[in-house]
Amino acid sequence: MEKKAIQDYYPDDFAKCYGCGYLNEKGLKIKSYWDNKTESSVCSFDPAPYHTAIPGFVYGGLIASLIDCHGTGTAAAAGYKHEQRKLGTDPPIRYVTASLQVDYLKPTPIDTRLELRAEVKEVKGRRITVDVVLSANGEICAKGTVICVRITESMLPKSSGV
Amino acid sequence: MEKKAIQDYYPDDFAKCYGCGYLNEKGLKIKSYWDNKTESSVCSFDPAPYHTAIPGFVYGGLIASLIDCHGTGTAAAAGYKHEQRKLGTDPPIRYVTASLQVDYLKPTPIDTRLELRAEVKEVKGRRITVDVVLSANGEICAKGTVICVRITESMLPKSSGV
Repeated sequence: MEKKAIQDYYPDDFAKCYGCGYLNEKGLKIKSYWDNKTESSVCSFDPAPYHTAIPGFVYGGLIASLIDCHGTGTAAAAGYKHEQRKLGTDPPIRYVTASLQVDYLKPTPIDTRLELRAEVKEVKGRRITVDVVLSANGEICAKGTVICVRITESMLPKSSGV
Repeated sequence: MEKKAIQDYYPDDFAKCYGCGYLNEKGLKIKSYWDNKTESSVCSFDPAPYHTAIPGFVYGGLIASLIDCHGTGTAAAAGYKHEQRKLGTDPPIRYVTASLQVDYLKPTPIDTRLELRAEVKEVKGRRITVDVVLSANGEICAKGTVICVRITESMLPKSSGV
């Protein structure tokens, strides 16, 4: 397991994302940790009290946001692996979301840490599909699939944080 | 077109939602306006500068949140219509999201008002499927489908705001 979050390797312009940018002061600062061996990554998130749906449970939009950023971050790490490169080396590899599917299986409690696990399901050309499972207190509360598309190099700024 | 937003009829406990609750001070306060004739509703939203993905464009998690709350709000209004009742009458009708699908068709500009239109696609037992289209500057940027499930009456608090 990598010790530094995937998102902490993002170039500055990608590090302003409300979901996962370390440069977005008001953002959620979602962080994903990559395991090169299993092509999977994990993410933990402590919802704030105001991230509520009905009292006691997490807002579905936050769950979608966590799955989205954790998915695209995981795709980025997988992209490096498939080029046999180290995370964060130039030119940067970044993916955006083409489609997001979330199944809300049960209400997600707000007073506990949320744990997400993402697995690379398919790598096909510029497209990577990532499956994400969100659990709370050891129970699966939501599942998601993120189809991520690689950004062309001409659109990318230089990397940072390496 | 109704003049009062669907969400402004929600019982207090539903009005704390981060996405659309008028009682959530830190929330997005998403508001949907229902047209009983066409079984559709509209929503406008002005993203904040920090709701960014890469600079200049809206964060996908916000788009998912808008589609989610606009979808469940629209389902609630459709639920009232199918019981031939006025919006906000007791017992309250509320739906939660069972699944959310978002297709991101093009980058969504952040410096303009976002317009969402939701249409009821199917009503089947306790389940309502809503299609949502999000546009900016007259161009469709994202499409979503929200499968909403009606909350059982025993779980519901009393209505308010009528």
